[in-house]
Amino acid sequence: MAALVSDSLAKENNDTASENSTAQVIGGHGTNSYSNNSSYQRLSANVVTKKIEDAIMKNLDVETLSSTSNIFRVADFGCGVGSNTINSMQDLLLIVEKKYISQCPTSSQMPEFQVIFNDQFTNDFNTLFTYLPQDKQYLVASVPGSFHNQVLPKSSLHLAHCSYSLHWLSRLPKELRDERSPAWNKGKIHYTSAPPEVLMAYATQFAEDLDDFLSARGREMVSGGMIVIVGSSIPDGMPYSQVVNGIMYDCMGSILMDMVKTGSISEADVDAFNLPIYACPPGEFIEGVERNGLFSIEVIELMNPAPWLKGPIDIPVFVKHVRAAMEGMFSNHFPSKAIDELFDHLVLKLSDISQQLESCYRDGLQLFAILKRK
Amino acid sequence: MAALVSDSLAKENNDTASENSTAQVIGGHGTNSYSNNSSYQRLSANVVTKKIEDAIMKNLDVETLSSTSNIFRVADFGCGVGSNTINSMQDLLLIVEKKYISQCPTSSQMPEFQVIFNDQFTNDFNTLFTYLPQDKQYLVASVPGSFHNQVLPKSSLHLAHCSYSLHWLSRLPKELRDERSPAWNKGKIHYTSAPPEVLMAYATQFAEDLDDFLSARGREMVSGGMIVIVGSSIPDGMPYSQVVNGIMYDCMGSILMDMVKTGSISEADVDAFNLPIYACPPGEFIEGVERNGLFSIEVIELMNPAPWLKGPIDIPVFVKHVRAAMEGMFSNHFPSKAIDELFDHLVLKLSDISQQLESCYRDGLQLFAILKRK
Repeated sequence: MAALVSDSLAKENNDTASENSTAQVIGGHGTNSYSNNSSYQRLSANVVTKKIEDAIMKNLDVETLSSTSNIFRVADFGCGVGSNTINSMQDLLLIVEKKYISQCPTSSQMPEFQVIFNDQFTNDFNTLFTYLPQDKQYLVASVPGSFHNQVLPKSSLHLAHCSYSLHWLSRLPKELRDERSPAWNKGKIHYTSAPPEVLMAYATQFAEDLDDFLSARGREMVSGGMIVIVGSSIPDGMPYSQVVNGIMYDCMGSILMDMVKTGSISEADVDAFNLPIYACPPGEFIEGVERNGLFSIEVIELMNPAPWLKGPIDIPVFVKHVRAAMEGMFSNHFPSKAIDELFDHLVLKLSDISQQLESCYRDGLQLFAILKRK
Repeated sequence: MAALVSDSLAKENNDTASENSTAQVIGGHGTNSYSNNSSYQRLSANVVTKKIEDAIMKNLDVETLSSTSNIFRVADFGCGVGSNTINSMQDLLLIVEKKYISQCPTSSQMPEFQVIFNDQFTNDFNTLFTYLPQDKQYLVASVPGSFHNQVLPKSSLHLAHCSYSLHWLSRLPKELRDERSPAWNKGKIHYTSAPPEVLMAYATQFAEDLDDFLSARGREMVSGGMIVIVGSSIPDGMPYSQVVNGIMYDCMGSILMDMVKTGSISEADVDAFNLPIYACPPGEFIEGVERNGLFSIEVIELMNPAPWLKGPIDIPVFVKHVRAAMEGMFSNHFPSKAIDELFDHLVLKLSDISQQLESCYRDGLQLFAILKRK
């Protein structure tokens, strides 16, 4: 069950263009660093690799792509800091090579491969580079900047990957902090269990961000190029309070409100804080891609992000993963003592409701989609 | 005079592929950081900008380049950490834009521009990115790895820049540490004032590195693309002991040998330490480019790196600059206490010989070359 939450959270803070949301993954190699606490993400990546292979073998026309250029570029958008991004990119390269061998068996040589790592300007690219294997057989570049904007030259990219990054909003809708708005999110930190206007504000912002993402990739990608998208989702129509992430966000909100009572933080601080995270249901995602118009949907499905996980969860370990992924969001808003208190209490609170966590919905919480540039 | 030394040193440790030489620029924004101690380099850059403009306006055929691609890529090889690399790249873009307007006045639009920053894997790209202007009108990428190897896709680069980086050797010749070799560099840390076999060992390694650099750029650059090279040099046939850098290296060596006597460090450590820096005279440079055969020489000249500098030098400030650039080389070999002692004594020793420093040769110590891919 841990992976249900950590998979969908761990990279949620890997990319944002926001002035308002200032979350960051914890860089370096320390105890609470993302790089040392992202093993669940790697497990999850293995599950989708086979699906990506199927789609690339079936749908990526490398013969046509290689007729116009001798370089094949693969980019990870919202790459983060850990070795997962490098492993994912290497998996993709192996698959693309396999497709080349299969589709162009008489070709004298492979194209050159360039792997491009994209994330925010504040991402710890220095640490990321330390994970690169010394004997790598591909060229490497890092491209800093929000993936809601164009970050690569026009028509230069062949394959894009975006794993657990898209649901990170570029900014928080202003009305969440506006006392006069029906979308004022008083006493809560997320749209889970909040009024429908709050959900709508989040959904509207996500739709805008998705459109910006697709338009930017539309400019960067060659015709026939593909985007692999993996990320947090939820079945159409299901309230977020029925899934582990939602329950945890509610817990966090209620812990923070308890801390208001003890005077650790102010109520205004809690009212002003909202997690810039939106798990888009497939219906809205399809609508967004079709409205944008630059890509066709080759594959889209909901899947269980961690079907292998059975039995009781080790809550302290789980919260450590959550903290590695989310601490930056809180530490930009609350004093550091409050952060320790929040995560300490989260362990206790989640332990109290472990039965509820075990029994809640956990199946179709991961969106897997493959888009193709028209 | 300060710039004579600091210009030619400050980026000497910005790029190396070496297993043996492990120098690094000091990253971050601290007191001894390169970014806070590289103002001389910026002054020097202004001097060469006009020469680069003349060469680009005369020799870079942007009409032909833009006929095959809508992207114009500029890369800085050995970019380092400070804002100088960003300023240099922006100066180059302004010149290229000017050439576009002049050569293609009827063209409906400029190409996209991508600026690529290259340096070692250990370079502090995180800090470099913090210097990028928020309103930049160009795409950015960093490409980690030794510039003695190919780091960019084939035929993808239009303009390259390499300032005070090339004279950094990729490795130290083994014979410098071989007691049985005539090139054993006992009691010295550089080829200055050393036996001719030592100079030859350095020169041979530089020639190999230059060939690797040119071959790598040859693969990466489009036909007609240009490389701007600025770096440490010396007139053909002049011994390095006649210039400020050489005198300083001799001082450093003699301070280290004094420290052997007081027991701060061991003699074997001094014998085993050599600065991997070679100031290539123009004759050898021309020979290397011609032997490589991939580039024509459009411009080559020796210039005074800092003709505006008159009057007595502020030696403590000057040594601070030298330390920012060179500390990494020493700290990988000697204990940190010894480094403080070395640079403290360097201030005293250079002060003692300030007359000699003021009167030594300082004119043609900067090589300026523009090469064109055939």
